[in-house]
Amino acid sequence: MQSTGEQPLYRDATVSTPKRVADLLERMTLEEKVGQLVGTWAGHLDGFKDADDVADEIRDHAVGAVASFGWGGAVDKRLDDIVETVNRLQEVALSETRLGIPLLFNVDAVHGHAYVAEGTAFPNGLGAAATWDVEAIERAASITATEVRRSGAHQNYSPTCDVARDPRWGRTFETFGESPYLCGKLAAAKVRGYQGDGIEDRSSVVATAKHFPAYSQPERGEDAAPVEVSDYLLRNVFLPSFLDVLDEGVESVMPSYNAIDGEPAHGSQRYLTDLLRGTLGFDGTVVSDWGGVRMLDADHHITADHCESVRQTREAGLDIASVDAVDHAEHLVSLVEDGEVAEAVVDDSVERVLEQKFRLGLFEDAFVDPSEARDIVGAEAHREASLDAARDSMTLLQNDDLLPLADDTDVLVAGPNADDVVHQLGGWSVPDPEGTDVVTIRDGIDAASAGRVVYEQGATINDTLDIDAAVEAAKAVDVAVVAVGEPWYLHEFGPTADTGTEPEEFPNRHTLSLPDAQRELVEAIHETGTPVVGVLVTGRPLVVDWLAEHVPALLMAYYPGTMGGRAVAETLFGKNDPSGRLPITIPRSTGHLQSRFNHFPHPTPIGADEHPSSYDPLFEFGHGLSYADFAVGDVALSASTIGPHEPTTVRVPVENVSDRAGTEVVQVYVTDHASDRVTPVRELRGFERVELAAAEATTVEIELDASELGRVDADGNRETVPGTYTVHVGDQSVELTIETTYA
Amino acid sequence: MQSTGEQPLYRDATVSTPKRVADLLERMTLEEKVGQLVGTWAGHLDGFKDADDVADEIRDHAVGAVASFGWGGAVDKRLDDIVETVNRLQEVALSETRLGIPLLFNVDAVHGHAYVAEGTAFPNGLGAAATWDVEAIERAASITATEVRRSGAHQNYSPTCDVARDPRWGRTFETFGESPYLCGKLAAAKVRGYQGDGIEDRSSVVATAKHFPAYSQPERGEDAAPVEVSDYLLRNVFLPSFLDVLDEGVESVMPSYNAIDGEPAHGSQRYLTDLLRGTLGFDGTVVSDWGGVRMLDADHHITADHCESVRQTREAGLDIASVDAVDHAEHLVSLVEDGEVAEAVVDDSVERVLEQKFRLGLFEDAFVDPSEARDIVGAEAHREASLDAARDSMTLLQNDDLLPLADDTDVLVAGPNADDVVHQLGGWSVPDPEGTDVVTIRDGIDAASAGRVVYEQGATINDTLDIDAAVEAAKAVDVAVVAVGEPWYLHEFGPTADTGTEPEEFPNRHTLSLPDAQRELVEAIHETGTPVVGVLVTGRPLVVDWLAEHVPALLMAYYPGTMGGRAVAETLFGKNDPSGRLPITIPRSTGHLQSRFNHFPHPTPIGADEHPSSYDPLFEFGHGLSYADFAVGDVALSASTIGPHEPTTVRVPVENVSDRAGTEVVQVYVTDHASDRVTPVRELRGFERVELAAAEATTVEIELDASELGRVDADGNRETVPGTYTVHVGDQSVELTIETTYA
Repeated sequence: MQSTGEQPLYRDATVSTPKRVADLLERMTLEEKVGQLVGTWAGHLDGFKDADDVADEIRDHAVGAVASFGWGGAVDKRLDDIVETVNRLQEVALSETRLGIPLLFNVDAVHGHAYVAEGTAFPNGLGAAATWDVEAIERAASITATEVRRSGAHQNYSPTCDVARDPRWGRTFETFGESPYLCGKLAAAKVRGYQGDGIEDRSSVVATAKHFPAYSQPERGEDAAPVEVSDYLLRNVFLPSFLDVLDEGVESVMPSYNAIDGEPAHGSQRYLTDLLRGTLGFDGTVVSDWGGVRMLDADHHITADHCESVRQTREAGLDIASVDAVDHAEHLVSLVEDGEVAEAVVDDSVERVLEQKFRLGLFEDAFVDPSEARDIVGAEAHREASLDAARDSMTLLQNDDLLPLADDTDVLVAGPNADDVVHQLGGWSVPDPEGTDVVTIRDGIDAASAGRVVYEQGATINDTLDIDAAVEAAKAVDVAVVAVGEPWYLHEFGPTADTGTEPEEFPNRHTLSLPDAQRELVEAIHETGTPVVGVLVTGRPLVVDWLAEHVPALLMAYYPGTMGGRAVAETLFGKNDPSGRLPITIPRSTGHLQSRFNHFPHPTPIGADEHPSSYDPLFEFGHGLSYADFAVGDVALSASTIGPHEPTTVRVPVENVSDRAGTEVVQVYVTDHASDRVTPVRELRGFERVELAAAEATTVEIELDASELGRVDADGNRETVPGTYTVHVGDQSVELTIETTYA
Repeated sequence: MQSTGEQPLYRDATVSTPKRVADLLERMTLEEKVGQLVGTWAGHLDGFKDADDVADEIRDHAVGAVASFGWGGAVDKRLDDIVETVNRLQEVALSETRLGIPLLFNVDAVHGHAYVAEGTAFPNGLGAAATWDVEAIERAASITATEVRRSGAHQNYSPTCDVARDPRWGRTFETFGESPYLCGKLAAAKVRGYQGDGIEDRSSVVATAKHFPAYSQPERGEDAAPVEVSDYLLRNVFLPSFLDVLDEGVESVMPSYNAIDGEPAHGSQRYLTDLLRGTLGFDGTVVSDWGGVRMLDADHHITADHCESVRQTREAGLDIASVDAVDHAEHLVSLVEDGEVAEAVVDDSVERVLEQKFRLGLFEDAFVDPSEARDIVGAEAHREASLDAARDSMTLLQNDDLLPLADDTDVLVAGPNADDVVHQLGGWSVPDPEGTDVVTIRDGIDAASAGRVVYEQGATINDTLDIDAAVEAAKAVDVAVVAVGEPWYLHEFGPTADTGTEPEEFPNRHTLSLPDAQRELVEAIHETGTPVVGVLVTGRPLVVDWLAEHVPALLMAYYPGTMGGRAVAETLFGKNDPSGRLPITIPRSTGHLQSRFNHFPHPTPIGADEHPSSYDPLFEFGHGLSYADFAVGDVALSASTIGPHEPTTVRVPVENVSDRAGTEVVQVYVTDHASDRVTPVRELRGFERVELAAAEATTVEIELDASELGRVDADGNRETVPGTYTVHVGDQSVELTIETTYA
């Protein structure tokens, strides 16, 4: 295939992408090919590299992917710097490499473009999930894609498809909680938002489903510890959310750091090729998690050295080694030259990478416009969308007639998380607190209250401050709002410089209780007799049994994002109805782990009466109070007997029987009596948010598809088992029969 | 096949067992066959049946197996009653059934014949394991077999092969701890002890390996909850101890109550036939755990009713349904008559059951001699053996120069477990405390001390008594010995009538800390300034961080059996060197679970320095102090390169460098660098107790066989992986290379 004129064929935008890819591939040397399969970074990782270093790597090694912003160690944190570096490096790639292949920039914009000071941060994973709002999550992802793309990046290492299985795990806050169904629906919404109508659109980015195939059930909650679960759990807990995002055409998949059944995912042909590309039919790119390649030799000890790790990841099916850069490239060239890796393996990966670059339009326009970036990133409409999401995430755990507060309530605002930008946004965000415009809880209450607002922090995360001052202030007000919880953290609660804590201090994987300092603060204020509203600003469920027992009102705020403080204040003062519902169980103690709504039934050999309940949480999955009251009428199915590929509709009459508007989240659970194996006592299979004015009534209709009630079989299909099922809504249940096709 | 004379062939003891079985089987009606496949019980279970009821079942349904003593609900608790009922029921079976087939009696004599008041109770599972003494455990099992057999039973539902995976699990105390290797070696020793040179011997019983294939990793520590683990864990954690007992020719196997990968073991052809009989080549009987059949419909919900459960367990490969009795028999007859279960399935099981009855000699002599029973059960020599085992199990966790005590020390004995027969023996024992002759800790100290001994209990398990009196007594003595811990319990801490606790109280699966009452008692005594020795009488590891931090000496006594109090006293006063070593980790908190010495390595994405250790227990596996001091010389291998089926010998020079005799337990751990999958950081692969006089030296030789270092493959074989391994003894390590055969 040859170009017809001066311009090579691959540069002709009117030519089909496959032809452009083939033409370009044919022109490439082995070194140039391999360069497309490695990514580099600018900033602080295991050493420091600046943009000049990266430029050299591009010139000398034709490195094809770059992370120069949008992650924790990046030096470029402000938009103008970011855009300048992006354009400069693209210029190097286009002008100073033989073939002029544009760069792919990737970012960690997991809850908004939050590693950019001016970017919009949405509620972090669990908070987003608490909205149970598929459309809102898609909208947030769409906004994120626009901000990411207009600041110069093309691939977002998001969404997480991980299902929360252990609250001790430091990455629990990034997940959409413990329901495989909810995780799948919300991850799919994110993919739709990121990729829009396709990555050809200049407001879309490549979405990256992570961490494949199973990351989130590490022993002891220890990040990246092996997952050693049954095939059933692998297929029915961890795979479903990946099936959902694959259905949405997710463009990229990231393997998990850990081993699954002994095989580190990054080096596993079984998972990355046989399962992902074979069984599940994925045809996008597989990109490594950052250190994922080197971990094979350094940590898992299944290869002898880095070179062998490169070989094994290539055989497994890796396309882009995210930060492995020049070392990886050099090893790969040698391996191909020595015949240890077939060049066809390299070619297949290069084709996938180039195909995305062509479809992204990078060969036509690789540069970004600084002024457009400034207009888009952190735009007011984006902040409004973040506020909406935060409002909808607010989960009222308990309320003994204290909330909502009257406008003229005098309030003490206290606690380590009442006025802390870094803690409020949580991990995967806040490159520069000074440059980050966040509405804290203190800000929000100052703005919302017509009464007197006093602020006295009282404690940091782990240390008491002037508790006496807080007590005195509490005595002089009507209500104390104490925002407790967790600081910013990543992975296993590091880096500690950002958390402001010592390595052995809270938060850590052993402890789910609040530190003594926070407990002392709340206790001291509580003892004044002034009613306390506990606000939990926290990434994951904490054991708050003392709070639940002693304070009248408890609001779960998660990490609520840029506008989170306003959402909290509006909720406390009744301007926003708390419509969040827990996407994860809040357990009674670490001794009660794992407390999950979808646990398995089992025998009780000594008798059920001497057996404490399998599920006895402090607050259960799906829980959350509204200020309004709802009456639910008789639940019915449109058809109580259906075929194996047919739908039925669950009809739920809901009436707002209060004198104020409010939102109910109707949740449909199903129990499987059909299977010949043990299945969960119930699984979430449908839900719908419904906002009703005072005295308004409606009938919510939620479709259940027979095929979605089935198990995931070895072929990655949801296999429906004919037989009886029970459909639960609240305390009601109705029977559903799925017939065999030949019945 | 016909008898040659008046006497049927099967009654002729000179005829071979297969011929006798075939002759008898041919004579049997379907009802008579099915009768051999069900067991009944006398006592309190889900209702009450007395010996008359059982006699009726034998007459009317030819029921072939009986549990009338040796378990918790039995009414016969004293030896004379036991023997009388056994002989009476055998008489019914022999004289009042058409074919006169003798009965098989089974018992739960899991740590000695401890459900018989006069029987000898050995230390319970973890205590036995703490001896790391294969010969002593074989001897204890041999004694148990003799006591069981002479009191009229033929099958013992022991040993447990379960590997402890969660200390919250109520059956942890029955296990041999967390090392698959140690569990396997000790379970094999028990089988040798129970079965002796064969069940043809009148001092042997049928051993029952339980609970197959994987019971002991229930979610939340919740008894009988599903086990959903990878094939690797199934094969390399749970199967190895079964491989070891199968190698010893164990005669019977009991399935686990729970589901494994969704399949309840009792109904699983995959586990009971394909794996156990097919892959592993087992040809003995499979006997149900008590309620195991009915649980398929009642709890696991995988069958519609009891009849369907009977069908499924029969298809799965069950031989004897332990307590399912007449209902089971009637269903099975119907199922065969209706063609739903092949009669050949019944015949196969009947052959196995009859074969054991013939080999046991029951057709020649089914009766027991009451006076012989009285001589044997609880014989002085048996109690001495129990004392020896208890001595060797004593595990000194810490000792700040307090122990051993001088003979004339004045001692306060306190705590709920210092003088309580029931708590000291623990679960699966003590039918009648009044009739059970136990040496408590108080008794032991009274006998051992030449000083003044004061007893003031101070607290029950959950409630304080007269703490002031204990404090006053403590002020007047040299040392306070406070025995804290757990009461008697079974399964998930019931039945509460025997534990003396309420259902929500300690012990339960959520809590590993000592109850407040016990903590208060120790704290009050500690505050007097009188040094405290904490003695832990407990089934499982408790979180004793406060004790470890505050009291100078801490002795783990487990449930130490009949003579346990004397062993404790001898240890405190230095008459016995504490030579027990922890067979299980004592964790820092429930938040640290699971803390296991043989955890997997894994990456630390944010950096190892911000990552708390994967294994940071309060007291680690293998820990235990001696009063003597040992010096270990250079560890060496007899061969550092071996073939895949060759052994090497680890040579460990050990010298007693103290002025008193003592015992060291040399432990050999191996790290596998050869596998292409992630393997544990280390596994125990060899050990040896060595008792040395003051200043004595020896070289301990421990053989490592290459094939034992391998993984268990899908065929149930230990597959050696050629490559490098590290052999660890203490802080030393040496490299071992296993070559391929063709190298």
